[in-house]
Amino acid sequence: MTGATVPFKQVPEIEFWFEFASNYSYLSVMRIEDAARQCGVRVTWKPFLLGPIFRDLGFATSPFLLQKEKGAHMWQDMVRQCRKYGLRWTKPTVFPRPGILPARVALLGAEQPWIGTFSRRVMELNFADDEDINSTERLIPILTELGLPADALLEQAQAELTKSRLREQTDEARRRGIFGAPTFFVGTEMFWGNDRLDDALLLAAEQKA
Amino acid sequence: MTGATVPFKQVPEIEFWFEFASNYSYLSVMRIEDAARQCGVRVTWKPFLLGPIFRDLGFATSPFLLQKEKGAHMWQDMVRQCRKYGLRWTKPTVFPRPGILPARVALLGAEQPWIGTFSRRVMELNFADDEDINSTERLIPILTELGLPADALLEQAQAELTKSRLREQTDEARRRGIFGAPTFFVGTEMFWGNDRLDDALLLAAEQKA
Repeated sequence: MTGATVPFKQVPEIEFWFEFASNYSYLSVMRIEDAARQCGVRVTWKPFLLGPIFRDLGFATSPFLLQKEKGAHMWQDMVRQCRKYGLRWTKPTVFPRPGILPARVALLGAEQPWIGTFSRRVMELNFADDEDINSTERLIPILTELGLPADALLEQAQAELTKSRLREQTDEARRRGIFGAPTFFVGTEMFWGNDRLDDALLLAAEQKA
Repeated sequence: MTGATVPFKQVPEIEFWFEFASNYSYLSVMRIEDAARQCGVRVTWKPFLLGPIFRDLGFATSPFLLQKEKGAHMWQDMVRQCRKYGLRWTKPTVFPRPGILPARVALLGAEQPWIGTFSRRVMELNFADDEDINSTERLIPILTELGLPADALLEQAQAELTKSRLREQTDEARRRGIFGAPTFFVGTEMFWGNDRLDDALLLAAEQKA
């Protein structure tokens, strides 16, 4: 229990900005908790919505749809990346798949011990099972399995306060220069993309007291 | 000399599509020859021009200039990436820096033993020394140091045949779905970005007879 004597703020931290519709967020959601634990780094989960960010940048939808060639490469890349990380993979028949409801739930759970498992289960629904993620019907079994009061949580997720908190979190993403997902912050250093997760964790771990 | 008995076509190969103006191409140019040698993979150098590709995709210039936030992250990322790979780095005062002349020279040298060193020296001019790369004045010392007939090579580089060969190579890039640089091919598998060089080399090495 020596760790108990370390003041909370000295635990190195990584901020993890992710979106449930984002395929590269899938890779990071699946591996960040284990990877961070191995580095002694605490993960701060920051669900947000990419749609409004993309619209502000002048994109009507995902750049992977707007740029045919980039999209074709991405689907090829995801097969290889999932194989590399040992993750299940099914190309979603709906992309980007709306995920505002799980994002609101994740916002409620961001500081709860269940955030990692919840986020992984939602991501697997989307990118391994090719299922809708934006319905109470799909989320109830996940929350129930986690021992949580599913109905109460989903009601709170759809309350005006939660909706506006998610809008504020997305506004914060925009203000901080986030233009895609996943994005990591270690202090003021921003890292974009699952490919930078390990570098970001290394930097966070180096800043340990 | 056991390698001499292996037919040429059984040596695993990686195609390396790069552009001298591209900062992420800089990273790959600097490290591909050593990395490929360690994997027993042969590098086929494919210089091309990104400008015409970007214009076809509807971008007037580099997406890093068109998307302010993405550009800001990229400059931050380059500092960290160069530190990671032990490469010199100076943010170029001209970006993207025209590099059609060295691309034409690289096309002439693509199958010559000096292609790696030549390309690294041009990249260092751009991204470490912040110097013009598109002038005979800058390229003559590089070619001369390599023991090459600089004047004759530069004259050949600016001949109509070479110009049209570079246009054809850029057309080929477009036909094959290339939308950025660096891009690697191992057979029909396309890998985009310096972050995928190691995966591409692994795949190539696995295909060894």
